[in-house]
Amino acid sequence: MDSIIEYIIEEDLGFGDITTELLVPENMIVTAKILAKEQGIVAGVKVVKKVFEDMMLSVKVFKEDESKIAKGDTILEVRGSARNILTLERTSLNILMRMSGIATTTYNIQNQVKTINENIRVAGTRKTTPGFSKFDKLAISIGSGDPHRFALDDMILIKDNHIAIVGSVKKALEIAKKKASFTKKIEIEVENSKDAAIAAKNGADIVMLDNMDPNQVKETLAILSDFGLRENVLIEVSGGITQENILEYAKSGVDIISLGFLTHSIKSLDINLNIIIDS
Amino acid sequence: MDSIIEYIIEEDLGFGDITTELLVPENMIVTAKILAKEQGIVAGVKVVKKVFEDMMLSVKVFKEDESKIAKGDTILEVRGSARNILTLERTSLNILMRMSGIATTTYNIQNQVKTINENIRVAGTRKTTPGFSKFDKLAISIGSGDPHRFALDDMILIKDNHIAIVGSVKKALEIAKKKASFTKKIEIEVENSKDAAIAAKNGADIVMLDNMDPNQVKETLAILSDFGLRENVLIEVSGGITQENILEYAKSGVDIISLGFLTHSIKSLDINLNIIIDS
Amino acid sequence: MDSIIEYIIEEDLGFGDITTELLVPENMIVTAKILAKEQGIVAGVKVVKKVFEDMMLSVKVFKEDESKIAKGDTILEVRGSARNILTLERTSLNILMRMSGIATTTYNIQNQVKTINENIRVAGTRKTTPGFSKFDKLAISIGSGDPHRFALDDMILIKDNHIAIVGSVKKALEIAKKKASFTKKIEIEVENSKDAAIAAKNGADIVMLDNMDPNQVKETLAILSDFGLRENVLIEVSGGITQENILEYAKSGVDIISLGFLTHSIKSLDINLNIIIDS
Amino acid sequence: MDSIIEYIIEEDLGFGDITTELLVPENMIVTAKILAKEQGIVAGVKVVKKVFEDMMLSVKVFKEDESKIAKGDTILEVRGSARNILTLERTSLNILMRMSGIATTTYNIQNQVKTINENIRVAGTRKTTPGFSKFDKLAISIGSGDPHRFALDDMILIKDNHIAIVGSVKKALEIAKKKASFTKKIEIEVENSKDAAIAAKNGADIVMLDNMDPNQVKETLAILSDFGLRENVLIEVSGGITQENILEYAKSGVDIISLGFLTHSIKSLDINLNIIIDS
Amino acid sequence: MDSIIEYIIEEDLGFGDITTELLVPENMIVTAKILAKEQGIVAGVKVVKKVFEDMMLSVKVFKEDESKIAKGDTILEVRGSARNILTLERTSLNILMRMSGIATTTYNIQNQVKTINENIRVAGTRKTTPGFSKFDKLAISIGSGDPHRFALDDMILIKDNHIAIVGSVKKALEIAKKKASFTKKIEIEVENSKDAAIAAKNGADIVMLDNMDPNQVKETLAILSDFGLRENVLIEVSGGITQENILEYAKSGVDIISLGFLTHSIKSLDINLNIIIDS
Amino acid sequence: MDSIIEYIIEEDLGFGDITTELLVPENMIVTAKILAKEQGIVAGVKVVKKVFEDMMLSVKVFKEDESKIAKGDTILEVRGSARNILTLERTSLNILMRMSGIATTTYNIQNQVKTINENIRVAGTRKTTPGFSKFDKLAISIGSGDPHRFALDDMILIKDNHIAIVGSVKKALEIAKKKASFTKKIEIEVENSKDAAIAAKNGADIVMLDNMDPNQVKETLAILSDFGLRENVLIEVSGGITQENILEYAKSGVDIISLGFLTHSIKSLDINLNIIIDS
Repeated sequence: MDSIIEYIIEEDLGFGDITTELLVPENMIVTAKILAKEQGIVAGVKVVKKVFEDMMLSVKVFKEDESKIAKGDTILEVRGSARNILTLERTSLNILMRMSGIATTTYNIQNQVKTINENIRVAGTRKTTPGFSKFDKLAISIGSGDPHRFALDDMILIKDNHIAIVGSVKKALEIAKKKASFTKKIEIEVENSKDAAIAAKNGADIVMLDNMDPNQVKETLAILSDFGLRENVLIEVSGGITQENILEYAKSGVDIISLGFLTHSIKSLDINLNIIIDS
Repeated sequence: MDSIIEYIIEEDLGFGDITTELLVPENMIVTAKILAKEQGIVAGVKVVKKVFEDMMLSVKVFKEDESKIAKGDTILEVRGSARNILTLERTSLNILMRMSGIATTTYNIQNQVKTINENIRVAGTRKTTPGFSKFDKLAISIGSGDPHRFALDDMILIKDNHIAIVGSVKKALEIAKKKASFTKKIEIEVENSKDAAIAAKNGADIVMLDNMDPNQVKETLAILSDFGLRENVLIEVSGGITQENILEYAKSGVDIISLGFLTHSIKSLDINLNIIIDS
Repeated sequence: MDSIIEYIIEEDLGFGDITTELLVPENMIVTAKILAKEQGIVAGVKVVKKVFEDMMLSVKVFKEDESKIAKGDTILEVRGSARNILTLERTSLNILMRMSGIATTTYNIQNQVKTINENIRVAGTRKTTPGFSKFDKLAISIGSGDPHRFALDDMILIKDNHIAIVGSVKKALEIAKKKASFTKKIEIEVENSKDAAIAAKNGADIVMLDNMDPNQVKETLAILSDFGLRENVLIEVSGGITQENILEYAKSGVDIISLGFLTHSIKSLDINLNIIIDS
Repeated sequence: MDSIIEYIIEEDLGFGDITTELLVPENMIVTAKILAKEQGIVAGVKVVKKVFEDMMLSVKVFKEDESKIAKGDTILEVRGSARNILTLERTSLNILMRMSGIATTTYNIQNQVKTINENIRVAGTRKTTPGFSKFDKLAISIGSGDPHRFALDDMILIKDNHIAIVGSVKKALEIAKKKASFTKKIEIEVENSKDAAIAAKNGADIVMLDNMDPNQVKETLAILSDFGLRENVLIEVSGGITQENILEYAKSGVDIISLGFLTHSIKSLDINLNIIIDS
Repeated sequence: MDSIIEYIIEEDLGFGDITTELLVPENMIVTAKILAKEQGIVAGVKVVKKVFEDMMLSVKVFKEDESKIAKGDTILEVRGSARNILTLERTSLNILMRMSGIATTTYNIQNQVKTINENIRVAGTRKTTPGFSKFDKLAISIGSGDPHRFALDDMILIKDNHIAIVGSVKKALEIAKKKASFTKKIEIEVENSKDAAIAAKNGADIVMLDNMDPNQVKETLAILSDFGLRENVLIEVSGGITQENILEYAKSGVDIISLGFLTHSIKSLDINLNIIIDS
Repeated sequence: MDSIIEYIIEEDLGFGDITTELLVPENMIVTAKILAKEQGIVAGVKVVKKVFEDMMLSVKVFKEDESKIAKGDTILEVRGSARNILTLERTSLNILMRMSGIATTTYNIQNQVKTINENIRVAGTRKTTPGFSKFDKLAISIGSGDPHRFALDDMILIKDNHIAIVGSVKKALEIAKKKASFTKKIEIEVENSKDAAIAAKNGADIVMLDNMDPNQVKETLAILSDFGLRENVLIEVSGGITQENILEYAKSGVDIISLGFLTHSIKSLDINLNIIIDS
């Protein structure tokens, strides 16, 4: 992820951190503490450690990625040039805050869902922030969710528009089974239980039930079981799932629940940086 | 903003959109409508127009940036290679959804605040998503907010850590006035009314009242007026401002209210893309 | 694949095509024919079409990717600035020649193998030429082979070193099943039939038999069948397979034969470019 | 060559080496030996040393570039993070294998030719693999061949198409002598002995005899000698030269023999990497 | 400024420093002194220090940026690989020579002007060398000048063409005051004293008097004073100012004198590098 | 040269041309004339034409590169979006002004020198502005000078430090003759006539007389003639040559005079851009 991080820092610098260059002596050495201002799951520690180290700052990590943090906890300590620390402050905090916000929400939902069924996976979608997508996905993993497909080459995912173009679920799967690399799983999005059964019968590895309510999901799973197709496939639900209705989905017996809001509508976790000037 | 957009698209493609290449004929031409699924202010239209046109797709814009959109409105129509449209679908929607989410929230808050005082500016902060920062800031502008400082070279902004290092508000401003380029405004963050007065007296263009409650803000403004310093400076408040208490701040008489949540904790606006296959 | 192509052309140009700039008038327009000098399967046509079009040359394709070509066939015709055509000549031919060499060998082997078993897939490996890897993989696909894993994030592929570190095939698979994204297939490399059986029983999607001779492969497949595990998995053979012994492997009943030499030891197909000066 | 190497590694990583991250502990330290599996001339050692060191691995070189290696020889040893070593394994081997394949073939041919004439140079052509061209050329040098022109700005090389456009060998050389920088050598490609003589007389530094058989080459050299022009120029032969007929060309008295197959149709040398887990 | 420096070095290297690789042993360690060959103000030391250190050379600085240097002074000493030092020699000297040339001229003019008025700032313009602009601006600062606007997003600078399009100085300022971010200063270019007064009255932060002779400048300042507008604004003069007439401008009472020739017509300072071979 | 131009424009834009976006209507179309403000040789026209066309502006060229221009001449006319023209104004002018300044000086000196000897070439050196080097060299060519070596891989150029390391002129040449590619010329820098003779005798293609005064140059040429070595080599003089003494060098009988000041101490030619608003 090196080149995007270089881009981010050069973009933020422009002609330089003109305030810091004016006011902070070039050789001043300080320590900075990065502190949690609310509780959650911390994410992005490894990323910002690298950001700091690339600017010749030394880093001591107190809370590794995936750790629980409480208000007031020191996440990491950075020591070195005061100028460099102040220059990287905002970018590092932005990375940590957004990633920790995503990880925390993911973790909480994953835990909620586990009370119903130990094996359900909470997954992200591709509704990430462009330019930060890798970090969004990484944050989901750190929050013990499943990142799902990252880029367009990760798996075959046949969506409504593809099916419309090809003509039918069956035909789309036939082509995919025949021509796709054997290294790729095949997932297909369906909108009713009939298509779900056709998909399960025709070799889909994963069937995504799109925008079904929990009852429709249950019915569909029942039909799959009746036809002896339930074991063939993983069942994912997606669309219209909120923090309110998610347990209904969890109870329906699906394998994966994917949630756009984990990345497209997330509150960052509050984290800040305090400089400690050597006295 | 060309190189970051190229990066975003190449990252998303990897080895290619393997599903679309398998299922969609190379020469198939379709039209796609991008539709609002909820009301708000649309932002990012010019950006995604360029994204589509760079991949040889033709675009018809129905709702320019800054327009109000209602559920069901067509924002833009794209025509050309079905493969290219499907390949760009998610990235374009991600740009539009996040930017429109930011623009809508900014617009609503700006309007709320205007009911109190026509001249107050609602501004963003630097708490943006790295890699998407330019678009975050652009979305605030489109939502009729003020983007505030974009990069570290945009203005002199003297923060608590700088003051701690230099020793005092007065000394920090003296150095800045003397050495900074005349092209740059000088803003300084203060935590009490005394420092606010010192700042106004010593040539700050903007004084940021950090984490004060509305009463402290009012008091500070009164003190500045008493000393005849109110006209010298713009007053910005920042820190601890929520959608609940913002009108209290607006009533206090400040010039600028800056809000981190405009970019760090935003809900994307729901927008989708429908393919219309020529019959 | 845009940024690597830009890199390739800028690297080749340096300060410019100094011979052509000296000798060829700036406004001279010519037509160039790209001709096969030996028979095979052509690959890279779409890639070089884009290379030419990006330099404002117009292209007429006579032989699409995947077509059979015979000595003397025109693959494509380019028209436009003589300077631009001469400047791109070598790079375009290098792309076409290597990709067609790979596609041709892949195609011939795939056909040979199909005489034994219609369903066996001939696959590439990751032994590609760095900087040209995407094109190497694309050429295998065009030659009707399976590109196999492209990058390190494409699938879980547990190799001997991973197993050695984790301790056993079983433990490696347990971790992978539990923690890997559900979107990824899991392949594991084994060196004997016992490990193959353990792998098949513990949820591997694909078992790679590494460096086994055809008899060992047959034995292993028999054992898997005996235990009712053959249907669970795809079986891939890799290592030590040559054009001489490949049919033996094909007869053994495996699903996939992967071949490093498709990309690491390939003869380019001979193709050249003739300028036709308008008389 | 830094930016292409960064590109290669980022491209190969994508979202990360997902297998290794799953199975190999983050802090595990191992040693890896890179071993020759067949004999030849090793090339690429300095390049991969840098690749490893940039990822914080320490490297001990046993066989420098240009060394002879035998089956079983340790080329280099790498020590450090097991994750990083496994992540770089394939890319490093791909670089070493291809470069060593080119160096070995070049070396063998150069030696063969030297039995005829100590001073003949075996040279490469521009038929390299795009994206890897610098390494291809470097491998030829390491195999004690001459890399020949690398990019289009390296020397003036007037080819058939240029001559056709300008009108004659003589005119092309006149323009080049007059207008090209004095820092550049001028080479011209001719197809018969008459043009060779004209070229030698008109100031070419090097005359390339294109697609002549060994007898034609001998005749041409005789004619040049008769006219007292042999000393003026270096004579290069190119086109149609194979490992079978190369000695005939060597005997003809030329100065340089250039061979496309050194880079466009080469067998990689077999090299692998063994992890040694500290016990 | 990292990516432009990487570009510069890779561009200069191409296939490598072929002379040095041929003649200088790989492991040879030397010391090099960088010496002033004429007096002036040195600039670029921090930049080239980083260039050398990135290539694993150790650097001892004798003259920091902004120091006065005399003929024969050692500016810095570099120690390490002879190959690396020779490879970076020209690029480092080019950076130092141009930057020191700019800093020296700026410093001399700034000093001259200070004899008239301690507070006048000598400023650069945007007439820099593309690709080296950041260094040009940095050199002006080091020479104690004001870099002025660096990029197009630094401040609002309304020029003749903008005014012509909008219709009047007044209207242009009204739009800018209303819509520009409060973080940006607003400067406007005017051509007569009337427009200067209108600008000062309508909220310009800085008024640039374009191409006025010293008398016109004095008159304009007098008019501004008469109307009580002089304190509102900073006054900058630009256009037609030479080393000959600059003191006339300085005497006129302006705040800023900006000079294109500081960057577009500058003599580099003579600096060279001597290798000291350990005996 | 595409990627450096993209860099230059993105760097200059930052967050955008904020003044122009505020004041110029998005759809306004204008024509702009680029006009010479002093006489000279124009250079950079082809470069800026591409810059404008890449931003969708149409360009009409009135004065091609190498043309003489007089004060008031229209060099080119650009038509299209007013915003885009204003955004590119400064960068385009900076390119044209510097390149034309270099071309004009080169042209004038080349002409002066031709009055003495038609065949002497005036050449540049590597003392260019980093980031703009390709354009500096191109401008020398346009001014009918010789660009000389562009990058470190262009030719073998053995300098004083190389000779010091190797031990002698003779030894340095022996190594270079034996090991350098036959495609490269070999130049060597010498400081006295004895070394010049040794160089000419040992196969240098070009001998650079470094920092000799015109008399020493004449003596050296005489010695070379006496030994029958003058025809073997091109003689270049470099170091200490000014516009005042250059004719003395020209008279001395050398082949090439290379001048650092053509690029390191040049006055840009004055050129500006006028917008014509359609009435």
